[in-house]
Amino acid sequence: MKLHSRHLLGLEGMSKDELTLILDTAVSFREILDRPIKKVPPLQGKTVVNLFFESSTRTRISFELAERRLSADVVSFTAAASSVSKGETLKDTARNIEAMKIDMVVVRHAAPGSAHFLSKVVDANVINAGDGGHEHPTQGLLDMYTLREKFGALEGLRVCIVGDITHSRVARSNIYGLLTMGAEVSVCGPETLIPRELGKFGVQVYHHLEEVIPKVDALNVLRVQLERQKSGLFPSMREYHRFFGVTKEKVSRAPKPITIMHPGPINRDVELSADLADSEHSVILQQVTNGVAIRMAVLYLLGTTN
Amino acid sequence: MKLHSRHLLGLEGMSKDELTLILDTAVSFREILDRPIKKVPPLQGKTVVNLFFESSTRTRISFELAERRLSADVVSFTAAASSVSKGETLKDTARNIEAMKIDMVVVRHAAPGSAHFLSKVVDANVINAGDGGHEHPTQGLLDMYTLREKFGALEGLRVCIVGDITHSRVARSNIYGLLTMGAEVSVCGPETLIPRELGKFGVQVYHHLEEVIPKVDALNVLRVQLERQKSGLFPSMREYHRFFGVTKEKVSRAPKPITIMHPGPINRDVELSADLADSEHSVILQQVTNGVAIRMAVLYLLGTTN
Amino acid sequence: MKLHSRHLLGLEGMSKDELTLILDTAVSFREILDRPIKKVPPLQGKTVVNLFFESSTRTRISFELAERRLSADVVSFTAAASSVSKGETLKDTARNIEAMKIDMVVVRHAAPGSAHFLSKVVDANVINAGDGGHEHPTQGLLDMYTLREKFGALEGLRVCIVGDITHSRVARSNIYGLLTMGAEVSVCGPETLIPRELGKFGVQVYHHLEEVIPKVDALNVLRVQLERQKSGLFPSMREYHRFFGVTKEKVSRAPKPITIMHPGPINRDVELSADLADSEHSVILQQVTNGVAIRMAVLYLLGTTN
Repeated sequence: MKLHSRHLLGLEGMSKDELTLILDTAVSFREILDRPIKKVPPLQGKTVVNLFFESSTRTRISFELAERRLSADVVSFTAAASSVSKGETLKDTARNIEAMKIDMVVVRHAAPGSAHFLSKVVDANVINAGDGGHEHPTQGLLDMYTLREKFGALEGLRVCIVGDITHSRVARSNIYGLLTMGAEVSVCGPETLIPRELGKFGVQVYHHLEEVIPKVDALNVLRVQLERQKSGLFPSMREYHRFFGVTKEKVSRAPKPITIMHPGPINRDVELSADLADSEHSVILQQVTNGVAIRMAVLYLLGTTN
Repeated sequence: MKLHSRHLLGLEGMSKDELTLILDTAVSFREILDRPIKKVPPLQGKTVVNLFFESSTRTRISFELAERRLSADVVSFTAAASSVSKGETLKDTARNIEAMKIDMVVVRHAAPGSAHFLSKVVDANVINAGDGGHEHPTQGLLDMYTLREKFGALEGLRVCIVGDITHSRVARSNIYGLLTMGAEVSVCGPETLIPRELGKFGVQVYHHLEEVIPKVDALNVLRVQLERQKSGLFPSMREYHRFFGVTKEKVSRAPKPITIMHPGPINRDVELSADLADSEHSVILQQVTNGVAIRMAVLYLLGTTN
Repeated sequence: MKLHSRHLLGLEGMSKDELTLILDTAVSFREILDRPIKKVPPLQGKTVVNLFFESSTRTRISFELAERRLSADVVSFTAAASSVSKGETLKDTARNIEAMKIDMVVVRHAAPGSAHFLSKVVDANVINAGDGGHEHPTQGLLDMYTLREKFGALEGLRVCIVGDITHSRVARSNIYGLLTMGAEVSVCGPETLIPRELGKFGVQVYHHLEEVIPKVDALNVLRVQLERQKSGLFPSMREYHRFFGVTKEKVSRAPKPITIMHPGPINRDVELSADLADSEHSVILQQVTNGVAIRMAVLYLLGTTN
């Protein structure tokens, strides 16, 4: 059993078997992370380039750690200190980097479809670390891993994604992956921030947290992009918090404790109250740990068998 | 014999035995630096993250070299290209990074106490690489190492720290460390830039270089923070140089040659004249070399025994 | 046989034997780049610092890859996130970094002569990765490698460099290297951008592409520095493209296909048409691949025998 594609561009279209293969492979790597020596040899002598055209702390560090722990050679590149400022196109950057005989490329870019585009023009394995509002597949996978770890299985699990669904690559990757795995997926947010066609995919749409909270096992709370405030689609921060901010008080109305997830970084007391983020029902830090294991699994599967 | 704490947050409160252990351990690493192959295996498979929220050339490179020469895996992070710009708090950053199963964190941050704070919220060993005006313990240690290397012992050695004592983490770490080791410590600077309570610690206070120069073995000349000029506490550059700039002419009045130290980077001909910085009595470049050895010693002691 | 100097500062003054040694050594490394495992041990335990005071994607990544594939420990430094912003001089930076017991320094800096200067003040091997408008020797070498790979030999080969010759370190390194190897070198560009004294060196000067195209085997098309537009020496982009832009239509007038080179990044359809850049006669991506091999060869020769 191996992955169908040489690249990980998104969770859309991936089969249940493929997703399960990644999640199962990540279990072994998750165990390695608890050992004193976390380094294993599978990517020795392979070169991975991290192309981050958008700034990111945790995703970049998480990938770098995963790469180094698999013994790969790592070269990182962030847009600020690069010839992108000289007007080079993504295609030229990609081709040039590939000409340097790179084995794998991890790319984050503001343009939806950029990872897909890259995979067409380079021979290296491409891993999408976020392409605009399109997909962020390793985030979707680590969220699924964390839910499976907590609940034992994804089949039938009721998960609600809360926030700006329209612009969220995290939401999209979660929706594709969770539906394929047989979970019941709902979303909750302001009408202006939820795409109309979502219903067709079998996703339940809510506009009131009070309505959805009693019906779910887990809430995946999206980060409010404060910089998107000026778009006019967003209510004020205060209003957002009042209606869509997830708080202890609101989740206390559920019949049983709800698991709280967040892709980070959290705007504390905006989309999620600080006490809830730090509570026993939060699995936010587990998501971060699992993220390294998921990325090791993806790098391993693409880098050694594909 | 091992260090009392799992972290190196400051030299305040460390015992003479602990400081001596670090200095003695650094001697072995200093020898390694003169070998053609400078790499040793003790931190193989361990991961160190360098969190630099303030820019720094030499301290960051010095730590990175020390880490790599101990065979650690290294991930570096500077604030500019990070989610700190997205408003993430230090606590969230720390917890997230720790959740990635990091073994050691080296942190530089503008807030005094930030390293201490980190050590409370993460499991990893924390090394303070400078927390605002509080402490910069590896700088203090490398200064002490350099003095011990030059003079054979610190006991009874007469060291004067020159400059803006109030805002200097370098001064504080030197004062704590040197006093514990039995050195005689004095400071010299403008009245506005020396804390009043310093006398209580057994530190002699001078406001005229002419007065202190005949009484000391070494001058540790602090960098003038040019950006602090606007605070109103500082005289003009010209006036500062005239009264507190250390020059060949001024030190020539001492009965015997005075050893010159500077934590770098030097404002040449402001706090220290260029000819003196490059003279035979300057140990400024030895400080830099010893800095790598001290950092290897600290990483080794915390990473393998604590 | 080994290189005469411990440093690679420029191709000016290097002998035919030395250039041939580098090119021949690069052949072995070029073969390694086609293997699944591209890592070899010669620089194990050696430390290389990349000092990039000007931003660069491909040159920095190319050097980093070359260094890692030779198993060196790598520390990279770009000016933005450094104490250069604190006003430190190049000399102090260099001495400090050297005091950290670095084995090799790769430096890019806007000041012509900066690499030469560094080689005088540090013990480490210095490799010039571009010093202002002076030289970029590894670029010259990789261009020569690519031509030799394509044509079998450089002796008698007719190469024209097109563009702003006056300000181009790429042009200078190519001219020195190619003339030494016995190639026939010409240049073509606006009168304002070609140094008058070039004729003395045995370089033919042209101001019309139509005139030179029928007489050459290869065109090395320089990047137009868009930021130099405001200098007044440059025609408008449109005019530049019309007269000096290399296009399929223009090269089609040659009696036989002309090999197209470009040091990158390309301003597509300014100095070089996109279709030609991507055509079968373009060796631009081979240049990039060969660049890694050339840098491995230079690092190997300086780091192990000099």
